[in-house]
Amino acid sequence: MSDPRPIGVFDSGVGGLTVLSEILRRLPHESTIYFGDNARAPYGTRSDEEVLAFSRQCLDELAGRDVKAIVVACNTSTAVALAHLRRRYDLPILGVIRPGASAAALATRNRRVGVIGTPATIRSHAYFLAIKDENPAIEVYEHATPSLVPLVEAGRLAGSQVERVVRDALGPLLGERDGNGEFVFPLPASARIDTLLLGCTHYPLLRPVIQAVAGERVAIVDSATATASALVEVLAMNGLEAPGTTRGTAADPGTAGHRAPEERVAPATHIQLTTGDRATFRDLAGRLFGAAFPDVSQVRLEVPAR
Amino acid sequence: MSDPRPIGVFDSGVGGLTVLSEILRRLPHESTIYFGDNARAPYGTRSDEEVLAFSRQCLDELAGRDVKAIVVACNTSTAVALAHLRRRYDLPILGVIRPGASAAALATRNRRVGVIGTPATIRSHAYFLAIKDENPAIEVYEHATPSLVPLVEAGRLAGSQVERVVRDALGPLLGERDGNGEFVFPLPASARIDTLLLGCTHYPLLRPVIQAVAGERVAIVDSATATASALVEVLAMNGLEAPGTTRGTAADPGTAGHRAPEERVAPATHIQLTTGDRATFRDLAGRLFGAAFPDVSQVRLEVPAR
Repeated sequence: MSDPRPIGVFDSGVGGLTVLSEILRRLPHESTIYFGDNARAPYGTRSDEEVLAFSRQCLDELAGRDVKAIVVACNTSTAVALAHLRRRYDLPILGVIRPGASAAALATRNRRVGVIGTPATIRSHAYFLAIKDENPAIEVYEHATPSLVPLVEAGRLAGSQVERVVRDALGPLLGERDGNGEFVFPLPASARIDTLLLGCTHYPLLRPVIQAVAGERVAIVDSATATASALVEVLAMNGLEAPGTTRGTAADPGTAGHRAPEERVAPATHIQLTTGDRATFRDLAGRLFGAAFPDVSQVRLEVPAR
Repeated sequence: MSDPRPIGVFDSGVGGLTVLSEILRRLPHESTIYFGDNARAPYGTRSDEEVLAFSRQCLDELAGRDVKAIVVACNTSTAVALAHLRRRYDLPILGVIRPGASAAALATRNRRVGVIGTPATIRSHAYFLAIKDENPAIEVYEHATPSLVPLVEAGRLAGSQVERVVRDALGPLLGERDGNGEFVFPLPASARIDTLLLGCTHYPLLRPVIQAVAGERVAIVDSATATASALVEVLAMNGLEAPGTTRGTAADPGTAGHRAPEERVAPATHIQLTTGDRATFRDLAGRLFGAAFPDVSQVRLEVPAR
């Protein structure tokens, strides 16, 4: 059982490439189609109705290209539209919220977790609910940080001005620093989080700045690793792994052990689609990820009926 | 889309009830069939061939009872047989190793994780490989602790003798304590784990003793929570949730928000099967979990052809 079809990865813009990177690391034999709805990004300040309509349109496009599974690598879309999208397509569809919530619940030791995300994600309380599902004893502090996605989509990841924006954004969650750079907590002691969940796939690109602002005592957790890990399981469970994937553990006689070493496997292919400008996507993605994205194509979507 | 059929949960004995408990907490509308192969437990000291043959036989029994998904709540069976079992049945089959490995990788802060399990599980290096898959930078220290399952299967979970057995079992992984009860590390400094993964579903029942022996600085992680969390996702993704399950997040108009509040849902049912003695299973399970198990039946399996 194996399936050479590509995995679809969807995001409102380039942030989902953090999830794609992790998928490529974990699953080197898999082909991928990345779809960024850059023309309409960011989604985080859109209405729920818009997010739902846009997400459906983008997933229609991916489903039409015969993908075998779809990762909704956009927290806003997962929060607002995942259940609807799962009913719409006869495909395994993985969101980033449950894996991210599970990761945060496992990472915290004092059971106090902060979550930052776009206004739409925070408004949905999807992370609050998902973390409470994992462990009701965990205190969850949610905070919308709408200023961060525009930084990333503009390719600005470092520098004193970026640090000031991040510091202002996290202030209400972390408290203020004193003159020595130590945090003075005007918050109740119970709000002293030891884990900060990056509830937006753009944010890992700002991780060094966020870590510097939050301080060493706060573990920074994102969904990318946990989502890729869940995807490994989903493909294995549904017999959807690409040919050449080493499967099985231990001395299971039916899997890797018996695969002829000379088995020829077609190389994985990776393409990127954007609703925005090709060159802009290619340049921004290349700048953010330090990797070449030679196969970017533009897709024109009709404005969805409202 | 919903599916009232039960979830099958398989273990060599009663240890998998730790996973069942977590499933019941997370998915209160789901019916379950638990299958414990008590007559042939423990599996951890069996050969790989025996573990494979026994697991196949037990899952045949569960599959024959029209379950919609199976959780292999036994680390030994997951390590040795999961890939084979996934090919054998056209059902989602979830193991405990990938979720447990992911949990440990997320919980560690110094990137040094200890894993304890049965000899068969440790011999497979399934956890080593799975944790390295999650994060290759993590150092993994595996150690077989064959003396622990017999304690649990005998219903012995506390007391000075149990603590001595646990201390002896963990010694090679943790180092020795000095006269003040602090650990003196004869191990290289690099072996100082901050996270201990319980790579056997029996071990969570010994968690208080293990935590006391390991000390406060070591986070104890098990697969039960992570596996139940992965099961939630698998059911949602495959449209297999029981009727009455609240699905969806936020303002998705198609799910929870629009379900008529008066919708009648059949109550979930839970039965337990054992290849061993019914009364022994009922008594042991009741003693270990402090819950009533009124619906235990005995299943007679033929000795599998070798």
